[in-house]
Amino acid sequence: MSEAAFVGIDTGGNNTRGLVLAKGRVVAARETPTDTSGGEAVLRGMLRCFRELEDAAVRAGVRVAALGVGIAGYIDFDAGTVTESPNLPLRDLPLRDLLREEAGLPVVVDNDANAAALAENRLGAGRGCRHQVHLTLGTGIGGGIIIDGRLYRGASGAAAELGHLVILEEGPQTACGHRGCLEALASGLAIEREARLRLEGGWRPVGGTPGASGRVSAREVAEAARRGDRTAREIWREAGHHLGVGVACLVNAFNPQAVTFSGGMTGAWELFSEALLESVECYAVPLARRAARIEPTALGGRGGALGAALLAEEEARRH
Amino acid sequence: MSEAAFVGIDTGGNNTRGLVLAKGRVVAARETPTDTSGGEAVLRGMLRCFRELEDAAVRAGVRVAALGVGIAGYIDFDAGTVTESPNLPLRDLPLRDLLREEAGLPVVVDNDANAAALAENRLGAGRGCRHQVHLTLGTGIGGGIIIDGRLYRGASGAAAELGHLVILEEGPQTACGHRGCLEALASGLAIEREARLRLEGGWRPVGGTPGASGRVSAREVAEAARRGDRTAREIWREAGHHLGVGVACLVNAFNPQAVTFSGGMTGAWELFSEALLESVECYAVPLARRAARIEPTALGGRGGALGAALLAEEEARRH
Repeated sequence: MSEAAFVGIDTGGNNTRGLVLAKGRVVAARETPTDTSGGEAVLRGMLRCFRELEDAAVRAGVRVAALGVGIAGYIDFDAGTVTESPNLPLRDLPLRDLLREEAGLPVVVDNDANAAALAENRLGAGRGCRHQVHLTLGTGIGGGIIIDGRLYRGASGAAAELGHLVILEEGPQTACGHRGCLEALASGLAIEREARLRLEGGWRPVGGTPGASGRVSAREVAEAARRGDRTAREIWREAGHHLGVGVACLVNAFNPQAVTFSGGMTGAWELFSEALLESVECYAVPLARRAARIEPTALGGRGGALGAALLAEEEARRH
Repeated sequence: MSEAAFVGIDTGGNNTRGLVLAKGRVVAARETPTDTSGGEAVLRGMLRCFRELEDAAVRAGVRVAALGVGIAGYIDFDAGTVTESPNLPLRDLPLRDLLREEAGLPVVVDNDANAAALAENRLGAGRGCRHQVHLTLGTGIGGGIIIDGRLYRGASGAAAELGHLVILEEGPQTACGHRGCLEALASGLAIEREARLRLEGGWRPVGGTPGASGRVSAREVAEAARRGDRTAREIWREAGHHLGVGVACLVNAFNPQAVTFSGGMTGAWELFSEALLESVECYAVPLARRAARIEPTALGGRGGALGAALLAEEEARRH
């Protein structure tokens, strides 16, 4: 009988990434834009990705034994449903059962940041850590917590909503209406909001014309910063400072061996990590600070899909 | 052979509370002021308390099998040392080994809030909860975390420093120099600071003369509030509001079945709990909020000593 393999799919507001993991090796991978025109479209996109990976698995001589899916949103893990998602048109969707019916395999559905945390713990920057906190830094901020080497889900699968740690009461608001939380102060959207405010104040980024539309993306702010733009550098430093306050809180609460980061913003690590570490030194309790290494992903953009495949492997073992 | 019993001692900056626990029942208890004139004095006070409880145990027909001690301070749990304490003259003290030598029994030393959390989980407001967060609200704010029914200590025993969650960057400072953390905004000392500022601004509390010294204790602010003083009520409400922000962060991170509270401030629960719950509703993620009950201690002032005795029982089982 051929080797068992596990498909992991990470569906975000922009891209859907999938891969096949067999014996700890990625034997096939693919990435497509996510069609967010409706819940049906998202589901069809996932299934298409799954079918293609299944075919690729056959060609690679392995047999897919389970499917794991990571979703940017609130997941009721035990029920296998997506309660709500900020960037995907999914609400109260019994995703696990729908996919199981179509795929005819064991399926597990989890929050994308949980999946990323697991991957980082097993294969990436948190390897060997018994306790670890992971943050996904993108348009929004997600979190995953590893305790005793396993994902910690809490009483109702809602643990690790770390983008919603409040670090500045009455501070700016997120898209979902929360005030002063990490996501409102240090996410990609927060960087874009700060940039917009500066543009309105007359800022003209060095070497770019993003001001024309009155908007500038976090990536464009990073590019301007790398060209030496002082305002752009300041925007990233401020985000790093806020992030560091949140990381200090996590260090004080969890006393982990590592705090790790993934997501699009980690591509600008050199622009915000110094300010982040300064804040951690300032706000963390020394005994806990000394125990924690603080590191960006070792898995690039693949962490979420890898973690989803690892979850699938755990699920298959249960069957 | 007589029934095994466990001595628990909770040493704080004001009082030392001790008790003997046998078969889940308290068979003797005592409370004395803590002599904080020096490290030696603190140690002598603990030993005196232990000897008296040992005698009481003999009279009650039980045999003391282990000693547990809860200390308000940073504890290196594995080493059994008190690294530092804000309110006790202890620093880098190998307390466990010193007590073990004197007592001739297994000894365990832990943070007082950890001990209180364990007691609340086994015998109090958190009974039956798999995951629980506990806050001790006194002069300072301490924390204890129960995960999977056991105390969570983190990578180096420094977990659950929940008084140091930052909820207002650049906010007011604690005695130990941390800014904007829960302890700086919602502890007994924070209430006293706010009261002092109001006194300086001309406030004269209803029915009291605490203004004479230019100081007023948190207890006096509570008394004034109960007499209908609007400023005093506002001070407690504000503390409750800040506490609720911190509790929301803990709910979002840990998704516990319960968040529980003990310590002197819980005596004024009716003065701040409404504001606390309002903040939680505002800042917590609904899925996590619904899972968590939020309740004051069911053990009065005895939680710390009870928890220390429960730790002693666990320690004895290991031998």
